[in-house]
Amino acid sequence: MIAVVKTAAQNTRADAVVAADMNTFGKIFRLTSFGESHGRGIGGIIDGCPPGLVIDTDLIQYDLARRKPGQSKITTQRKEDDKIEFLSGIFEGRSQGSPIAFIVWNKDQQSGDYSDLKDIFRPSHADYTYLKKYGTRDHRGGGRSSARETIARVVAGAIGKQLLQKPGISIRAFVSQVGEVRLEKSYTELDLETVEKTIVRCPDQQAAERMIARIETAAKNRDTVGGVITCVVRGVPAGWGEPVFNKLHADLGFAMLGINAVKGFEYGSGFAGTKLSGSEHNDIFIRTEEGIRTKTNNSGGIQGGISNGEDIYFNVAFKPVATLLKEQHTVDKDSKEVTINPKGRHDPCVLPRAVPIVEAMAALVLADHFLLSKLNSI
Amino acid sequence: MIAVVKTAAQNTRADAVVAADMNTFGKIFRLTSFGESHGRGIGGIIDGCPPGLVIDTDLIQYDLARRKPGQSKITTQRKEDDKIEFLSGIFEGRSQGSPIAFIVWNKDQQSGDYSDLKDIFRPSHADYTYLKKYGTRDHRGGGRSSARETIARVVAGAIGKQLLQKPGISIRAFVSQVGEVRLEKSYTELDLETVEKTIVRCPDQQAAERMIARIETAAKNRDTVGGVITCVVRGVPAGWGEPVFNKLHADLGFAMLGINAVKGFEYGSGFAGTKLSGSEHNDIFIRTEEGIRTKTNNSGGIQGGISNGEDIYFNVAFKPVATLLKEQHTVDKDSKEVTINPKGRHDPCVLPRAVPIVEAMAALVLADHFLLSKLNSI
Amino acid sequence: MIAVVKTAAQNTRADAVVAADMNTFGKIFRLTSFGESHGRGIGGIIDGCPPGLVIDTDLIQYDLARRKPGQSKITTQRKEDDKIEFLSGIFEGRSQGSPIAFIVWNKDQQSGDYSDLKDIFRPSHADYTYLKKYGTRDHRGGGRSSARETIARVVAGAIGKQLLQKPGISIRAFVSQVGEVRLEKSYTELDLETVEKTIVRCPDQQAAERMIARIETAAKNRDTVGGVITCVVRGVPAGWGEPVFNKLHADLGFAMLGINAVKGFEYGSGFAGTKLSGSEHNDIFIRTEEGIRTKTNNSGGIQGGISNGEDIYFNVAFKPVATLLKEQHTVDKDSKEVTINPKGRHDPCVLPRAVPIVEAMAALVLADHFLLSKLNSI
Amino acid sequence: MIAVVKTAAQNTRADAVVAADMNTFGKIFRLTSFGESHGRGIGGIIDGCPPGLVIDTDLIQYDLARRKPGQSKITTQRKEDDKIEFLSGIFEGRSQGSPIAFIVWNKDQQSGDYSDLKDIFRPSHADYTYLKKYGTRDHRGGGRSSARETIARVVAGAIGKQLLQKPGISIRAFVSQVGEVRLEKSYTELDLETVEKTIVRCPDQQAAERMIARIETAAKNRDTVGGVITCVVRGVPAGWGEPVFNKLHADLGFAMLGINAVKGFEYGSGFAGTKLSGSEHNDIFIRTEEGIRTKTNNSGGIQGGISNGEDIYFNVAFKPVATLLKEQHTVDKDSKEVTINPKGRHDPCVLPRAVPIVEAMAALVLADHFLLSKLNSI
Repeated sequence: MIAVVKTAAQNTRADAVVAADMNTFGKIFRLTSFGESHGRGIGGIIDGCPPGLVIDTDLIQYDLARRKPGQSKITTQRKEDDKIEFLSGIFEGRSQGSPIAFIVWNKDQQSGDYSDLKDIFRPSHADYTYLKKYGTRDHRGGGRSSARETIARVVAGAIGKQLLQKPGISIRAFVSQVGEVRLEKSYTELDLETVEKTIVRCPDQQAAERMIARIETAAKNRDTVGGVITCVVRGVPAGWGEPVFNKLHADLGFAMLGINAVKGFEYGSGFAGTKLSGSEHNDIFIRTEEGIRTKTNNSGGIQGGISNGEDIYFNVAFKPVATLLKEQHTVDKDSKEVTINPKGRHDPCVLPRAVPIVEAMAALVLADHFLLSKLNSI
Repeated sequence: MIAVVKTAAQNTRADAVVAADMNTFGKIFRLTSFGESHGRGIGGIIDGCPPGLVIDTDLIQYDLARRKPGQSKITTQRKEDDKIEFLSGIFEGRSQGSPIAFIVWNKDQQSGDYSDLKDIFRPSHADYTYLKKYGTRDHRGGGRSSARETIARVVAGAIGKQLLQKPGISIRAFVSQVGEVRLEKSYTELDLETVEKTIVRCPDQQAAERMIARIETAAKNRDTVGGVITCVVRGVPAGWGEPVFNKLHADLGFAMLGINAVKGFEYGSGFAGTKLSGSEHNDIFIRTEEGIRTKTNNSGGIQGGISNGEDIYFNVAFKPVATLLKEQHTVDKDSKEVTINPKGRHDPCVLPRAVPIVEAMAALVLADHFLLSKLNSI
Repeated sequence: MIAVVKTAAQNTRADAVVAADMNTFGKIFRLTSFGESHGRGIGGIIDGCPPGLVIDTDLIQYDLARRKPGQSKITTQRKEDDKIEFLSGIFEGRSQGSPIAFIVWNKDQQSGDYSDLKDIFRPSHADYTYLKKYGTRDHRGGGRSSARETIARVVAGAIGKQLLQKPGISIRAFVSQVGEVRLEKSYTELDLETVEKTIVRCPDQQAAERMIARIETAAKNRDTVGGVITCVVRGVPAGWGEPVFNKLHADLGFAMLGINAVKGFEYGSGFAGTKLSGSEHNDIFIRTEEGIRTKTNNSGGIQGGISNGEDIYFNVAFKPVATLLKEQHTVDKDSKEVTINPKGRHDPCVLPRAVPIVEAMAALVLADHFLLSKLNSI
Repeated sequence: MIAVVKTAAQNTRADAVVAADMNTFGKIFRLTSFGESHGRGIGGIIDGCPPGLVIDTDLIQYDLARRKPGQSKITTQRKEDDKIEFLSGIFEGRSQGSPIAFIVWNKDQQSGDYSDLKDIFRPSHADYTYLKKYGTRDHRGGGRSSARETIARVVAGAIGKQLLQKPGISIRAFVSQVGEVRLEKSYTELDLETVEKTIVRCPDQQAAERMIARIETAAKNRDTVGGVITCVVRGVPAGWGEPVFNKLHADLGFAMLGINAVKGFEYGSGFAGTKLSGSEHNDIFIRTEEGIRTKTNNSGGIQGGISNGEDIYFNVAFKPVATLLKEQHTVDKDSKEVTINPKGRHDPCVLPRAVPIVEAMAALVLADHFLLSKLNSI
């Protein structure tokens, strides 16, 4: 879908610096992911899921539907019918304690469409860096670097959410900014149960409309737009997280920064909190009928890396999509100057589809810390 | 140094939810840290350092001096004479490939000073969460949650920096914001060699003066102030990083979020980039005499999780210090309301002293990816 | 295929002690395995395989054929047509540095055959311990505990062998004992290229015949027999292995002891070496045209946990197969006494089919240490 | 203490193949060890020990005393006063959930004594392989390869034993063979509480006397002798262990094979079991008043990699000590032929001193699986 318009000289070899890959996430509840956008499919293995968990496939399919392309007028119109198929680890509807392998098969990829791009480095994509790292790359639709890989995360996260129902934890993400359009209200003023009521996944009807308009403008301009997703986790008891390197927010930040297109992470008061004085920022402990609470929650539910029982909330920054339906200059692997002009169906904004991915990664982190919290009484 | 002013009733038990701890950072070049603020000392073991590296103790001591309290009028006036002592792994001045153990002994802690705080949860500290997690805590000066633990990181990071000299990598952090006082210039307009010329560690003289004034105002008000540290890494070749979960920026973000008081992380265009359109944000590849480069660097030197050879830069948000020399209300472990009024020597702003810690954590991540990049040619 | 003959009283509940599972092997070159004997199939993900390796599917299929049932008159006559199908990580015939997922589909399992065994603990199988650990189990054909799981190891090992061709390493296992029938010659007196010439996989024709006869006797008696497999690794350069916990032989031993039915491991002089005096046992260094060598090789090619360039050789003890075609007494999950009398097609001796499994596990260990050995020069 | 008698020509360089080291043992309860025989000391960090455990230093010192040289007439007469010093992680006598660092300082090493050996490869030691791996080595007393490193294991194991008292587990090792002198009785016929009554640590008085005589003969001959240690673990409930790669016996075998001088490991019926038929070997389940048991215990308490509640027992083979007080031929790093003739105080047999080391490594494995077994109920 890309028309190579012109090329210009010079030969620089991408010398074959190559290295091993790392595709496992988590410490106890672990996802190992596999698959390329134009290979056989995307899948993974979940290891460390406790036995006896009823696996509700509908809930998994529900999150896949929230992630999949073609779901509304503001996403790519590409159709992918992403259906989960389990390969192991579930017997009579329950996890067995053995590895849960799964795959979502790829369908109807037209890999030929990408052959023009074989030797070209698309701006702000991973084409150049993959070649420098591996000395080779599967150029078809981004190969392993495609965001289609997040299917594996959504599946594992959906199972993580089911595990987290046991301690009563809910995870709710929503779009809080698109380009310069920002949801001004705090999440505490909103009903997070209404997130799915707007196609942009913003729980404020008016802000949602402005966001949708902003995305439509981008699409009309054959351009793209970024934004911010906010995620709220409720029900985490005090005492989860590790205090030094694996602070609960460090694990969450690591998870979010591993999502394609993410450029930043902040929790609680975040970057804005840097402008407050300590006396404004400190969360005073108070005694309540439910026990010890804090009056404010600049801490974002985490103190010293460990949950304190308040809501955990954080923001995730997404850059605008790199694929534009516009002419752009670039170079190919021989350092020749070329111009690309992608056609076809691409997302003008990934934010609405990224909401279930943010939730999934949060679920993986929390499922892990749920299990870690059991390494306790002597 | 804390005066308990008054207390008020009710008894809620912090029930003993307890868990194992995780104190190792890194995949190949690994630091395992130990120590409490009022124990014997702070130390660690570095495993995975290649043999034959000349260890320059002066460079380690230099970074420890940049971290230590009492170094200028804007830090706490507490004196700590932090001297590194190696316990293993170095022979005739060189690393041996065996684990490098080290300790910085604690001196003259007056633990008795803290006995008043034994049962009190200081606001926005880790007292409450530690007790909920472990069912016990070493209350003396924060114990394991004290920022004194970062000594181990500074030592290991200083060795990481020495390893990174081999591929020609430099890491330079500086303070770019204190409270609302912000360095407006980009790092590319500044001489990062001048960072140490101001006590606040900002390479712009005028901004530095305003920042120092801001910290002095906070100190005068017996209050504290937060801010932002920016870090620039130069010389990383294209091809480092892992494309899925261990994206180079995800590992960096994880490292930074593991530093005490950090609330956010962004790299390249960061949160501001979310407001740009794709056509503004994309970094166009160009052909230069040095090879392929990008015209702009919104990517922050990382594309698809892998370095592209441009400068890597990122921002780290620090909240204001939680210990105020003011009266504050809180509760104790029996849920009684109490008032604390800390006295003594505390930092009004951690930013200047956190600069070498940010550099150290960046060095640990990059030393690791330097070694990982060797898992390459067949 | 099991006839329950009689049962007797009493009700003891297997209380639900359950736990997470661990299904990943290796440090850099890592196999995560999945699958049950009567689920969809057996497969895995290989992570950490360097890019650019030509993957020869025939070599994988060759090792699968050596493992599969029905290959000769001395193995079970069950037919399984084990065909590898790759799901990711290979493009244009070469590894890409991304995870290599694969599956061998199960076919024609008659799970119904096993329903009689649902609640019965077969002697010296994992039925009882699985239920105690997980509180649940997939009873069909042993589920996850079935030796069919080793298919994943053979596939990954066959790829490991291809990687090890680069440094010129060969791995050769053979049957050196069946019951009390023992191959008396040392491997150095034998041509290991002839291993495949006998169906029992012993490179000595006469010993092979006696072993085959021994297996046939066992089969005739509706009984089973154990034995020993010896493995020889040639071409490992001096300097591989880690000197403390991950001694090269400790990693090999761990790998072998993880194979079903293995009861012991010894390398070099092994248990027999405990009877020698030091002056008999020490391997004297000598100077040769090829460099430094040892005169004898009681060390089995490994000194202080690190390879010394000599042949690495070791023995692996296998117990007799637990499934007998005989009546045996046992209990069921309610502690009722029952009698089982299995019928059908089972191996009287696993040794011939275990030869490629031993080789595969050795290949995984050595591929890992090959990559680890690259974490070297500064 | 080594006299270089003669040397002979030729120059072959040990080319600097070097690599990173791995010094951490365990999954949840983890020991990272450090130190060299002639450095500052031997120590480690235990991470993952649950909080609240009372640490009894006397029990640690007791096991160190069982390990230390000079304890009886049949060990080396070298005196080392090994005293544990804790550096972190213990407060008011209890573990805090934070890393427990410790050191045993080295004293009075006469490193100069070893300078003659600087360039010489002692037969069946790690001198040659270390140099090949690292390109450098601390030659003083074996440096990192010295068995003095096991001090760290004994300390961590002693803490592991204290943790294992909670589920009521006891670990008892003893010497069951010295050279060809073998304890013929099964451990079930012996009172393991009498192990410490003989200096050779064999619970059978008569066998002990023959073993002591055998060691004295070796000493008189300026030679050394190997042997076997048997270890019995009682009280492990059914359900511990992981069924695929981390079988409980695979983890135990890995632990044992990581001890210096170990050449083999077998559990339950072991190598002898390979000669039995299945009908002789199978352990029949029976119903007893205590619940389900097995009639025999060829399984060694582990079935399918998971404990079944019976005694766990295994054998560990030790080669004879490599350091002989005799003239031996060898080569130096320039491939020159030399003769060494060590003098001084060395063990004629390590077995008696290795008993607490075997117990310690078993304790580390079981403490880990104790904690892993908590990753269970949903």
